[in-house]
Amino acid sequence: MPVKTVEWRGGVDGFLRLVDQTRLPTELVYVDAKSIERLWHAIQRLEVRGAPAIGVAAAFGPVIAAQKPAVETRALLARVEKACNYLATSRPTAVNLFWALERMRAEARRNAGLSPAAFRKSLLAEAKALLREDVDMCRRMGRFGATFIKGGMGILTHCNAGALATAGMGTALASVFTARRQKKRIHVFSDETRPLLQGARLTMWELMRERVPCTLLCDNMAAQVMKEGRVHLVVTGADRIAANGDAANKIGTYGVAVLAKYHRIPMVIVAPSSTFDLSIASGREIPIEERGAHEVVEPFGRRTAPAGAHAYCPAFDVTPHELITAIVTERGIIRAPNAARVRAHFRP
Amino acid sequence: MPVKTVEWRGGVDGFLRLVDQTRLPTELVYVDAKSIERLWHAIQRLEVRGAPAIGVAAAFGPVIAAQKPAVETRALLARVEKACNYLATSRPTAVNLFWALERMRAEARRNAGLSPAAFRKSLLAEAKALLREDVDMCRRMGRFGATFIKGGMGILTHCNAGALATAGMGTALASVFTARRQKKRIHVFSDETRPLLQGARLTMWELMRERVPCTLLCDNMAAQVMKEGRVHLVVTGADRIAANGDAANKIGTYGVAVLAKYHRIPMVIVAPSSTFDLSIASGREIPIEERGAHEVVEPFGRRTAPAGAHAYCPAFDVTPHELITAIVTERGIIRAPNAARVRAHFRP
Repeated sequence: MPVKTVEWRGGVDGFLRLVDQTRLPTELVYVDAKSIERLWHAIQRLEVRGAPAIGVAAAFGPVIAAQKPAVETRALLARVEKACNYLATSRPTAVNLFWALERMRAEARRNAGLSPAAFRKSLLAEAKALLREDVDMCRRMGRFGATFIKGGMGILTHCNAGALATAGMGTALASVFTARRQKKRIHVFSDETRPLLQGARLTMWELMRERVPCTLLCDNMAAQVMKEGRVHLVVTGADRIAANGDAANKIGTYGVAVLAKYHRIPMVIVAPSSTFDLSIASGREIPIEERGAHEVVEPFGRRTAPAGAHAYCPAFDVTPHELITAIVTERGIIRAPNAARVRAHFRP
Repeated sequence: MPVKTVEWRGGVDGFLRLVDQTRLPTELVYVDAKSIERLWHAIQRLEVRGAPAIGVAAAFGPVIAAQKPAVETRALLARVEKACNYLATSRPTAVNLFWALERMRAEARRNAGLSPAAFRKSLLAEAKALLREDVDMCRRMGRFGATFIKGGMGILTHCNAGALATAGMGTALASVFTARRQKKRIHVFSDETRPLLQGARLTMWELMRERVPCTLLCDNMAAQVMKEGRVHLVVTGADRIAANGDAANKIGTYGVAVLAKYHRIPMVIVAPSSTFDLSIASGREIPIEERGAHEVVEPFGRRTAPAGAHAYCPAFDVTPHELITAIVTERGIIRAPNAARVRAHFRP
């Protein structure tokens, strides 16, 4: 069973329970978000992270916002709208966040004519549906993604695109878990993923929990392992994908894609269709979050650079579609992605 | 004035003073090596590191070995030979270590007919000559290297190839320091260089000490900064260079070279001629030191991966000569290095 990264506890007056991912791998503890502010902080501080998981967690924000007593549904709707606006400011890059909030906002508006009690129920039902769909999409992405995996393969991944990044079994790692269930013999190399070490802390934790043979690498060792012929596939998640297939993902993914190209290794991105932002033509338009330099110069609470050192800390980079062999969604596979193929993928 | 990374204090009965590089950048403290065993540990534990600095430090090993009282020079020579054999086991990759030890061994054999006192003096004189030559070679490499640097350039470096890696002003960083003295306006990007963070701890310390504008990057950010058009030259040192120009250097250098190639950025390696191992035809024959996994999974004394996680930890990688724009030595510049051009460079 994958870990329950995002879970709603109780009924309409319940709360959101999140795995506190900043404490892994040393301890598995939970954050209980009972207010919009706490949820905002959980997203902003990366207690919950991974584009799909952020989307699912945010979907419960309107449920929490509508818990306050009110005589009129109109007052609750105003609170929900405000909560959506506020939660949208927690992180800028992952588009699933905005997608989930817009879906909840639309549901709230649709149900503005109901009684407060029925309104609250409808929001909870919608958020739960969104969570269930995420679980199902992970399963489907896992099946499509696993078709790229053959027995005997070495697979390199960057950051964490596993169960901890979703409400289900993950995106990129869902392919790995599915391949393992299909009894394929594989070995996974996990980039540690500086500065926040999601690969070392989270991906290794998930892989070891599921008994997938795995090796941790510093980010700068990926090229060497590729050169040694031990990597046959690179698979990562994504935080936002433009209409032409350019994909934003954790900083370092672009470099891995260039290295994969040089070593003629396929590069596959696995992400639900909610990761696509078809309103933007190319990756150049994706806003890239820049985080505090302290994440680079004081990793793990210990200063590693001279006092006053200037550091650059982009949280994401964009891999141009030319470097991507395929994008896998819950709908299927986009091979050699470009604007036309992305369009075709989304044609009803 | 560059820091005195390796310094002999006193006369024939003196000792070797080394900057303890494991304590930087938080504190500048010294290790006094008064025995062969202490010197061996200083090299093995990376208290002194950087191929040229290791060579210079090791050269004083025979001086220390010959300090013990002896009636016959023959007994001292035996001690010197034993010390050379022992020190050669401290680290496997950097060839300057073996080169310096062989030079001292030859000097000792040449002087075996002298009195014990004269023998000791001759060894100290030879080790000091080797140190002075290193200082001079750094100056020359700096001048040749600086010809690749134009005003307005962004320069990326990996690991530390500065004053801390030599007895003088450095190899790769000597180019940077020389360019600055020539009043060229430059900006240096320093990869932090996991696992031991020589870039964050040592290169940033040296650059800030010399007031060179600089920015620290996580290793996986180099590709992004190149994509942003902010890097116009990559310059690194080397630990061993084969007869065809293939160069071993700190793990991650090969990946940086691939990224530089993709972004059409020149890649220059700066290293003294003692870094060449003309006895080996290509980089495939260079032994690569693999260090303990704890350097990856417990950086800075704090565990970042699950207990029992398997990690790969090669300390070096080899950049094939096809990816190298030029190799700079104290003798001049080898452009587009290959076996013939390396041979021509060393023709008397």
